[in-house]
Amino acid sequence: MVDLVSALQAVLGPKGWLSGSDADPYRRDWLNRYGVAPLGVARPASTAEVAAVVNICREAGAVVIPQGGNTGLCGGAVADQANAVIVSLSRMTAIGEPDLESGSILVDAGVVLAGLHEALEPHGLMFPMHLGAEGSARIGGLIGTNAGGSQAFRFGMMQDLVLGLEVLMPDGTVWDGLRAVQKDNAGYQLRKLFCGSEGTLGIVTRAVLRLYPTPKQQASALLVMSDFSAAVSFGAFLRGEAGEFLAGLEFFSDVGLTLALKHLPDLAYQLETRGDVYLLVEMASGSTRVPLDDILASALEWGMEQGLVVDGALANSGAQRAQFWRLREEQPEGQRLEGEQLKHDISVPPGAIARFIEAGAKLCNDILAGVRINPFGHLGDGNIHYNLSPPEGRADFDGKAAAFAEALAALATDMGGSFAAEHGLGRAKIAMADRNRSSTERILMARLKRAFDPQATMNPGVLVRVP
Amino acid sequence: MVDLVSALQAVLGPKGWLSGSDADPYRRDWLNRYGVAPLGVARPASTAEVAAVVNICREAGAVVIPQGGNTGLCGGAVADQANAVIVSLSRMTAIGEPDLESGSILVDAGVVLAGLHEALEPHGLMFPMHLGAEGSARIGGLIGTNAGGSQAFRFGMMQDLVLGLEVLMPDGTVWDGLRAVQKDNAGYQLRKLFCGSEGTLGIVTRAVLRLYPTPKQQASALLVMSDFSAAVSFGAFLRGEAGEFLAGLEFFSDVGLTLALKHLPDLAYQLETRGDVYLLVEMASGSTRVPLDDILASALEWGMEQGLVVDGALANSGAQRAQFWRLREEQPEGQRLEGEQLKHDISVPPGAIARFIEAGAKLCNDILAGVRINPFGHLGDGNIHYNLSPPEGRADFDGKAAAFAEALAALATDMGGSFAAEHGLGRAKIAMADRNRSSTERILMARLKRAFDPQATMNPGVLVRVP
Repeated sequence: MVDLVSALQAVLGPKGWLSGSDADPYRRDWLNRYGVAPLGVARPASTAEVAAVVNICREAGAVVIPQGGNTGLCGGAVADQANAVIVSLSRMTAIGEPDLESGSILVDAGVVLAGLHEALEPHGLMFPMHLGAEGSARIGGLIGTNAGGSQAFRFGMMQDLVLGLEVLMPDGTVWDGLRAVQKDNAGYQLRKLFCGSEGTLGIVTRAVLRLYPTPKQQASALLVMSDFSAAVSFGAFLRGEAGEFLAGLEFFSDVGLTLALKHLPDLAYQLETRGDVYLLVEMASGSTRVPLDDILASALEWGMEQGLVVDGALANSGAQRAQFWRLREEQPEGQRLEGEQLKHDISVPPGAIARFIEAGAKLCNDILAGVRINPFGHLGDGNIHYNLSPPEGRADFDGKAAAFAEALAALATDMGGSFAAEHGLGRAKIAMADRNRSSTERILMARLKRAFDPQATMNPGVLVRVP
Repeated sequence: MVDLVSALQAVLGPKGWLSGSDADPYRRDWLNRYGVAPLGVARPASTAEVAAVVNICREAGAVVIPQGGNTGLCGGAVADQANAVIVSLSRMTAIGEPDLESGSILVDAGVVLAGLHEALEPHGLMFPMHLGAEGSARIGGLIGTNAGGSQAFRFGMMQDLVLGLEVLMPDGTVWDGLRAVQKDNAGYQLRKLFCGSEGTLGIVTRAVLRLYPTPKQQASALLVMSDFSAAVSFGAFLRGEAGEFLAGLEFFSDVGLTLALKHLPDLAYQLETRGDVYLLVEMASGSTRVPLDDILASALEWGMEQGLVVDGALANSGAQRAQFWRLREEQPEGQRLEGEQLKHDISVPPGAIARFIEAGAKLCNDILAGVRINPFGHLGDGNIHYNLSPPEGRADFDGKAAAFAEALAALATDMGGSFAAEHGLGRAKIAMADRNRSSTERILMARLKRAFDPQATMNPGVLVRVP
């Protein structure tokens, strides 16, 4: 191992190799559930250095763990064995000039999502991906986990926004797929396959991303809905009446709002009415000739006439819009501050959201009566973060985490959905995938893994077990 | 072989097995360039029958050629050896009830695209894929070739519209990936990988597709542009000003218009001015409160002020809109009736369209002076059908087809684009892919093929050569 380390140090220089306590910030995952101390953390500054690291590790028999912003929730970017090198892309942060007429940009894998948003602002273009971790999450990790977020229902997940990729393969060769076109059918869709592969097939080093023009106007509303069914029906109505403007369709519950208001004293809820379910609707348009506020207001009116919307307010300023969004965005933080919690990343067909929430509540209460259910998420694509807190006054779940997770995964599967909607499998959900997916599917994935990484040196133990 | 045939007949019944002259309509490809007589054509009526056919063929050592509507342009759905069974999905044509609140539908692979459009009409939903062959092309083939068409720049290619798949694997097992959610990251994105795999990894038998609400109003315009650069600039302007409404952004040239008007006497061109380049702009909205005609008209005005638009007309009726579209849609037919032609399916970054057309013209004229270049296609995604006719008064290209194809493929590759944008590789473009793509890329594809189809019984010789 001394040889391995000195070879890596020679290639990477002092900035490029961290060990001992310097490596600590990279060692554990975001939720502090996974990660043993690796041999060290390589921080290559170029694709060639990534290749050198991969080659040195492979020859020395050490495994490689690619890591972006380390904001993943399934433990897919940290080591589970000592004989591992974490490869952090955090020094590869170049952002190219956007191609204004084509709507695309070349970026390094280590670019932070919020940094990309900022860099695009002066150009009148946007990269339409927004999620809670955008201040830390890096493009390579977002590709590796096929990230979604609040605009995915409109603009797609990462796989829909990637035009081209450069990937360092486990054998040290570079796949240069840095094309900049949507339509490329010269063989299998490798660029799509790497999205969501969680660093198990190769290390994404650069990407060409699709950009959209920044809208010229926005309209936002916070609504109190009569129940989850009403939220689903109103969402379908909005898609039909104003689908091309929808840029956000987020929901949260009164359980979550109560926790957020309790723990975040500066958070303000300004509507008069409370209800079981809240909807945050955001519309945007590239045209200044669209009466966007009117369109949103008359949709609200319709919703009230139908008894779907109980109360609501249009944001009258950017500040109020930000307040509305904060109510939604602080859902995880409010619940975290309440104490122990269990997170579930579910998706179901959007029309089945209310049925899932109702059936899920019954299952969860059968497991532990009085458990507090805090579903929030993305109405447009049926993605429910179905998170639990222990019953009022209790500090823990009494060891029932696995029972909840399995019951909810089976329910989502039965309803044509997924138990791993936008966070991936990582190390956390492999066993769940083995139970909830067919052996045919798991075998195909194992064959894919072997085809790309026959020596299993690239993030082994993540996403799929190879027999 | 008698055993094979009688085993298939026993499973499929008289409707399900065609041989001799009954098999003739399935034997040759659309352009009549590929296809030898197979053992026969299996027409299974269910996934179980597809499995039986695949198993019988594999055990008898015969290869299987999946075929949809047989409208492909690269010879990927016909046999190149006698020891082959064509598996036509044309008897699997069930269309499920659309899920109105979720925007999705389950269909059999043999459903014809236009039939799906028709079935959705009463529900106020649409499947946003439109292409010339929609009256014959079947869903399974569209998935296999990852079809694009005129709305891909807005709604995506087939890979973006597929939520779930059922696929018959070469070993006879069924992969049931018929989930109905956009966000499913429980492992590798198999559903995306099968899109564009041209029947070489398995046979798609059923699919869950994403649907969108039918727009409530449309506005269309036919424009004469000052040149290709003007068309590109105007396209970028439209994306910025009214991107959410754009449902069509098609271009064609005066070469193509001249041929179409010459050979199709009922075709009408009603503008006063002619020019080098024409643009067909279509906008659509789900809202009745959007002044769509005004938005399009003022965009035209801006284009005229800028000197980009020379002349133009808004469609004042559905009939006129249909006339505009016919001018674009008859481009291939007009050129076909002129005589021999060479088709090229190019994509470049949309901002590079004019540069490609200019540089391509120089290359083509160097190969054969006076060759008539008829580029038309999809401005929004840079997809150029760069088709050639021999010089005026000549009947053929004097054996220069390969020189044209190679020069244009290399140019597209250099510009970050593709020589196989939306038609795939089939049998026609494998050698071109071997020359224009890295060996790393081709090796990865060969490994993928082997991982899924180790005995190479599924459409061998298509998409990739396995050493």
